[in-house]
Amino acid sequence: MSFKILHKEKNTKARTGLLYTARGIVQTPVFMPVGTQATVKALAPRVLEEMGVKMILGNAYHLYLRPGTKIIQQAGGLHKFMNWHAPILTDSGGYQVFSLAILRKVTEQGVRFQSHIDGSAHFIGPKECLKIQDELGSDIRMVLDECVGYPSGYENAKIAVHRTIEWAKISKEVKMRNNGLIFAIVQGSTYKDLRKNCAQKLVDMDFNGYAIGGVSVGESPQLVYDIIDYTMPFLPEEKARYVMGMGTPQDIIESIGFGADMFDCIIPTRYGRTGTAFTSIGKINLKNARYTDDFTPIDHECDCYVCKNYTRAYLRHLFYANEMLGPQFLSVHNVHFYTKLMENIRLAIEQDRFIDFKKEFLTNYHNAE
Amino acid sequence: MSFKILHKEKNTKARTGLLYTARGIVQTPVFMPVGTQATVKALAPRVLEEMGVKMILGNAYHLYLRPGTKIIQQAGGLHKFMNWHAPILTDSGGYQVFSLAILRKVTEQGVRFQSHIDGSAHFIGPKECLKIQDELGSDIRMVLDECVGYPSGYENAKIAVHRTIEWAKISKEVKMRNNGLIFAIVQGSTYKDLRKNCAQKLVDMDFNGYAIGGVSVGESPQLVYDIIDYTMPFLPEEKARYVMGMGTPQDIIESIGFGADMFDCIIPTRYGRTGTAFTSIGKINLKNARYTDDFTPIDHECDCYVCKNYTRAYLRHLFYANEMLGPQFLSVHNVHFYTKLMENIRLAIEQDRFIDFKKEFLTNYHNAE
Repeated sequence: MSFKILHKEKNTKARTGLLYTARGIVQTPVFMPVGTQATVKALAPRVLEEMGVKMILGNAYHLYLRPGTKIIQQAGGLHKFMNWHAPILTDSGGYQVFSLAILRKVTEQGVRFQSHIDGSAHFIGPKECLKIQDELGSDIRMVLDECVGYPSGYENAKIAVHRTIEWAKISKEVKMRNNGLIFAIVQGSTYKDLRKNCAQKLVDMDFNGYAIGGVSVGESPQLVYDIIDYTMPFLPEEKARYVMGMGTPQDIIESIGFGADMFDCIIPTRYGRTGTAFTSIGKINLKNARYTDDFTPIDHECDCYVCKNYTRAYLRHLFYANEMLGPQFLSVHNVHFYTKLMENIRLAIEQDRFIDFKKEFLTNYHNAE
Repeated sequence: MSFKILHKEKNTKARTGLLYTARGIVQTPVFMPVGTQATVKALAPRVLEEMGVKMILGNAYHLYLRPGTKIIQQAGGLHKFMNWHAPILTDSGGYQVFSLAILRKVTEQGVRFQSHIDGSAHFIGPKECLKIQDELGSDIRMVLDECVGYPSGYENAKIAVHRTIEWAKISKEVKMRNNGLIFAIVQGSTYKDLRKNCAQKLVDMDFNGYAIGGVSVGESPQLVYDIIDYTMPFLPEEKARYVMGMGTPQDIIESIGFGADMFDCIIPTRYGRTGTAFTSIGKINLKNARYTDDFTPIDHECDCYVCKNYTRAYLRHLFYANEMLGPQFLSVHNVHFYTKLMENIRLAIEQDRFIDFKKEFLTNYHNAE
């Protein structure tokens, strides 16, 4: 067993649970900060630990290309290489192959592509994909999927779903050396019949968990929510359900209401690097001149290291003066904001007040700036 | 009393001492990491504390221009603004006015210049200089000096010395609101008579401490050492003696042998940001391909957080992948290296084995790469 439901919220499909991995048990719903290149940008592992981050995501595509799986294997695996000892989920690289790689050619066997870094030629099929993740030694591995953009024609999306299913079949046969769970990814773009078909076929194969992929690639939030809401019931209740690459606090809250358990997103760190902070009343951009003499913390309700010790005026100065401590501190605050949000959500679910929590959060939270 | 000699080394002019400031007593010889813009680049104050950094330097010129002394005063002073509660020494800004500012005009009264940031017009005289530092609330303030470049003609250097002396006289009359020591700066370029004259005149005025400025601005190391060696005896033994803007580990060791107590330099953090690490056997550049699969720490003899947890291969990967954690980690290591070096030097002085220490250090330490 890799997942256990702790509590089903009375009024919604939200639930709390425990995810069992080789490197520890993680409470869900969980948000995973993104550590693309064997580092969560600007944040030392011990800073992540201090904030209560229990699990991070690594990008198979990026790590495969740089520094390469051989180096990471020699280092004793990704955990040892980057000094992060809690669970790591690695994505399949499917999304990156389709968004970053150049001259890619997709066949039934997999994807031929050229590296976006140096143009070198590579082939990754479903076997290679899992082998890379096995070599990285991640705790949860994702099956290779074909991710189409938005908008996508029906036929194009159908072919991608077909390949995703075929690749999943092949993935079931791959022998692994390291202990890790395997999750499959539901594709199907905005087409309900394709999503349903993809989900059902993958569920028949009995993976350790399931992800909804190919969302938040350009659709409106409402359309994203519709896809997630529609697809979720085709995924087994007793398995962990992961919405990939999402999202804003609103996105996460909505998806949890549909029954999602796991999330990853670059938003807290990327926004942090460019001066945007999440607060209980919405996003603020600390580069704004209005914060020049604002000697209050980013968020009065936040108990992160940065809010306890620094003012908006100081952070504004750091960004204005182009100092690295600005991105560093704002990444700390934002990841802490997400971690705390998940903690509050889990508590609200346990106490059957998820709807009230959501209402209250969204009433206070504006994207005014 | 602002300085007390603890031990005079038997065989050299090196000594250990205690520097008494409003915010604590600092052991000397001491190295101050540079926090130009109210941050030691890439390093959070708590990380500096953890490494045993007891005192940092702030740049009056930079802080005056950005964010401006008004903002820092409103924040409750520089210490509160940047959340650093140990002593801070602020430089006079003299060096920056002469190296960064544009369209500067020096008169008996002070310097008119335009900001290198936005071209705005400013005037700083000796009174304004100390007032800025008083407003910042630093624990040690430097008197405005005129710093000439290298090489400098004799007449030019003589005029600068004259102004430096005149400005020091005016500085003695400035009333301060916050408690802080005042140090004067000896100029005189490479000219012994000018250095001697400048030192003697300043010493007659009885400042809390004395600095040797205008060194390491382009001269050969040997010439720098000659100036320091020559000038030092004109500074009173019972006062702290500070060599400004230096230097490499070799520079620091040499200067301590001449009787210097205090140092500041951007080298450990700047080198750290560009991939160069200090080790007991010399500098290494971690961007070098040879470290791709080197799974040893930066320095086996180092007990910093980075050396205890990360390999050269990982750091090389961070720099190669352009990840902010690379500069951050290497700044940690390099500042730790300097802090540890000073600790070892103080111990060697106490035990009257400074010459042996120096010999051993320099035998191991090569700039091979």
